[in-house]
Amino acid sequence: MDPNSSGVAQRLAEAGQSHLQQFWDELSPEEKDELSLDLQGMDFKEINCFFKSAMEMSSSSKHEKMDARMEPVPRDVLGSVTRDRDSLQEWEAAGLQCISQNKVAALLLAGGQGTRLGVSYPKGMYDVGLPSHKTLFQIQAERIVKLQELAEKKYKSKCSIPWYIMTSGRTMESTKDFFSRHNYFGLDQKNVIFFQQGMLPAMDYSGKIILESKGKVSMAPDGNGGLYRALGGQGILQDMLQRGIECIHVYCVDNILVKVADPAFIGFCVQKGADCGAKVVEKTNPTEAVGVVCKVDGHYQVVEYSEITLATAQKRSSDGRLMFNAGNVANHFFSFSFLKDIVEKYEPQLQHHVAQKKIPFVDEKGQIVKPDKPNGIKMEKFVFDIFQFAKTFVVYEVLREDEFSPLKNADRQDGKDTPSTARHALMSLHHRWVLNAGGHFIDENGRRVPAIPSLKDGTDLPIKCEISPLVSYGGEGLEDLVRGREFRPTLMIDESGVHELVKNGV
Amino acid sequence: MDPNSSGVAQRLAEAGQSHLQQFWDELSPEEKDELSLDLQGMDFKEINCFFKSAMEMSSSSKHEKMDARMEPVPRDVLGSVTRDRDSLQEWEAAGLQCISQNKVAALLLAGGQGTRLGVSYPKGMYDVGLPSHKTLFQIQAERIVKLQELAEKKYKSKCSIPWYIMTSGRTMESTKDFFSRHNYFGLDQKNVIFFQQGMLPAMDYSGKIILESKGKVSMAPDGNGGLYRALGGQGILQDMLQRGIECIHVYCVDNILVKVADPAFIGFCVQKGADCGAKVVEKTNPTEAVGVVCKVDGHYQVVEYSEITLATAQKRSSDGRLMFNAGNVANHFFSFSFLKDIVEKYEPQLQHHVAQKKIPFVDEKGQIVKPDKPNGIKMEKFVFDIFQFAKTFVVYEVLREDEFSPLKNADRQDGKDTPSTARHALMSLHHRWVLNAGGHFIDENGRRVPAIPSLKDGTDLPIKCEISPLVSYGGEGLEDLVRGREFRPTLMIDESGVHELVKNGV
Repeated sequence: MDPNSSGVAQRLAEAGQSHLQQFWDELSPEEKDELSLDLQGMDFKEINCFFKSAMEMSSSSKHEKMDARMEPVPRDVLGSVTRDRDSLQEWEAAGLQCISQNKVAALLLAGGQGTRLGVSYPKGMYDVGLPSHKTLFQIQAERIVKLQELAEKKYKSKCSIPWYIMTSGRTMESTKDFFSRHNYFGLDQKNVIFFQQGMLPAMDYSGKIILESKGKVSMAPDGNGGLYRALGGQGILQDMLQRGIECIHVYCVDNILVKVADPAFIGFCVQKGADCGAKVVEKTNPTEAVGVVCKVDGHYQVVEYSEITLATAQKRSSDGRLMFNAGNVANHFFSFSFLKDIVEKYEPQLQHHVAQKKIPFVDEKGQIVKPDKPNGIKMEKFVFDIFQFAKTFVVYEVLREDEFSPLKNADRQDGKDTPSTARHALMSLHHRWVLNAGGHFIDENGRRVPAIPSLKDGTDLPIKCEISPLVSYGGEGLEDLVRGREFRPTLMIDESGVHELVKNGV
Repeated sequence: MDPNSSGVAQRLAEAGQSHLQQFWDELSPEEKDELSLDLQGMDFKEINCFFKSAMEMSSSSKHEKMDARMEPVPRDVLGSVTRDRDSLQEWEAAGLQCISQNKVAALLLAGGQGTRLGVSYPKGMYDVGLPSHKTLFQIQAERIVKLQELAEKKYKSKCSIPWYIMTSGRTMESTKDFFSRHNYFGLDQKNVIFFQQGMLPAMDYSGKIILESKGKVSMAPDGNGGLYRALGGQGILQDMLQRGIECIHVYCVDNILVKVADPAFIGFCVQKGADCGAKVVEKTNPTEAVGVVCKVDGHYQVVEYSEITLATAQKRSSDGRLMFNAGNVANHFFSFSFLKDIVEKYEPQLQHHVAQKKIPFVDEKGQIVKPDKPNGIKMEKFVFDIFQFAKTFVVYEVLREDEFSPLKNADRQDGKDTPSTARHALMSLHHRWVLNAGGHFIDENGRRVPAIPSLKDGTDLPIKCEISPLVSYGGEGLEDLVRGREFRPTLMIDESGVHELVKNGV
């Protein structure tokens, strides 16, 4: 196809992006077709606008002044699993009731690839090395299966939790294929709905779109906040409306402990009449690299750790806790009407954030260059950018050891958020479930192992214990299986019963 | 020397330990001399008594019932650097005044060898790989030098902080030699006083003393609680009396962040009229392997993590914090009169704890056997066993990231308390000191580095920054050196000035 035939060349020229065709004559016919297709689908004027406003926002001096504008989350909008223990059962019952009435959906943000993890497939397909070798997708799917069952049992009403899965251009096919090959892990196929977030080109600092090779534009997903545009553009909002969904739990794929569609969280938000809610964990160390939920100029938002001065990060309340301690774990509640307003009214007001990156590019001679320092930007919206539009915003504080262990990086010494830390977090939680249900563990000599394992060997290796989500969603229902019994690790509890596995190393 | 000449054989026979001489005839003359000397120094009847009461205490069912007997530390005996910020300056001034009056001593528990760390010399001689390559001993010595200087400056009175260093039979010579070779790191030699804790034989489960070879008894230090016997037996108490010491800060060698003779801690204890105080950090995760300070049957003590059930470990107060959250960091305050009472009256009441160990032994055929599961015990007293005798006990809560990072294990993946974690803790603290004093760090491109470093590379590597204790004891006095300045790491601040080191990798 001739580049001029569809007006692409003119649109490129008008937007100052004609360099994208500078190698046109050197391309094969197939490469020409592909590039043309890519370029035809892009709105260069819009992209230039995104770039301009993102760069303006990024260079504005607002960061310097952030400190004075920040206020902590007031106690009256905060629910806490440790400070409001008396309300927990009520919240959970309310959430289960919503689920039983088919009003609750889960929405998974899974557009990223496992680049930092060192794999080329979607992170949800990763096996962290549990005794069962279940992937993150399977664990989450089985939690949904179990939660439907719990709601049905309590409220005697057949129900389902639709699961919306946002992928990106890079992960769509492999994700769909993976679910199909595994029969949707026991879920009804029609309740697993895939959709795709948008992509945006990478730009250099002068606003030129970057070519990663002679015939290919450097593209990246538009951030997890690309969710809102995708919800509208791909009929997902419409699907929710038809199903009568009223509450949506949005979360990221990488947290192995995630309580998908957590009924207590949902019940808390519903009882508070919230249109928007954020689940948080307490930040206890001032320099921990976690964004915090707070108010800025009277509006809720997540302030990222890189925007905070040490003085602000160190501020403490009179009770000794950090003043800004609501650590964001990318776990949000939205009412359907709120989400609809976002998609239909507010989304265009959200500005892209600038992420400076080392972006491989093709130079004027046609050579591919891998820069060793940042040479351009990717533009991203963030899922939490919409907090500012909430009329009734609430925050729900949970325990890190029970609910948050993200998988981000490959294993290595001093590594954070690795397959090992994720695996250990899950087994440690399940170990505690067994102890709390009245079970015990014994060592190879038959002696009871203390509840808190010794660190004398210098590592923090948990008792090996895994409980299938199909048996227990959050630690419930284990008494009949374990009370008064003694187990040798590895202990595995799944739908076929209680098993002690022979030793085979982690 | 004939074994019978000094009555040793008879004493052995009376105590049921005659097997210690079973290979007598096979020993060389030198081996015979050594064994005789060892045996002559041992009181077998006393050892048998220790064994009997230690085993009785260990097998008693008290652990089962511990939960019901535990009470948390009441708020009125607790001082907290986060909750009592208004009092901090006053406490520190009071402590510095005591120091300026020559009333304060530091007492270092350094009897252990670096076995778990993988070295055969005293842990204090370990270099964790800081830019300066200072050892733990040097860091602590320089903190004392600086603290003397601060007290002198504030109260216009020349003063010294005597430093009592408890070694064991295995570490005494190398420790003394190390200090001597380094000219006591700037301290006056007469203010560095070495003494030695006792040793006890390892025993098998039937109460027989274990031979590690045909001519050698298996011996181990008698625990850090061996301190009290050693204080009396080696004239240390007398030395303190002569110097007019009124306050003693006791701590373990392995904590790289230790505030030796911490004036705020000492001032708090003195103002509260305490005879005994414990510094603690908040335990935030129920299954963290740390002992907790609490009341048991109305008396203060440290309950070790292995004694606690999960139900108790998980208990929370109405403010959401763990109920038993006073994590012991082996950092204690004793008044001289309290310590004197302990040594002269209460020490014999302290019972040995039983530590089950794999103890190499020589079998009946004379072969050395390395068992692969525990085959005997070592008997140890603990330094905190005397809390029960305090009349006015107080607890002082500090921030873990500021004051506690023990060195226990060699580096390895998922390792806790390693040279890397110790080094990072110190550099992270010093990084914060620079920021709080108004300095900034820039990266290789000259851009300011955010106060909270990104974890995008998957590790938690701090900015490389080390400040000599001779320049700052606790972050004070840095403004003139760093305010408004920008630094490229590695930043080193020492008595010769402010330096940026060329990159050489950690």
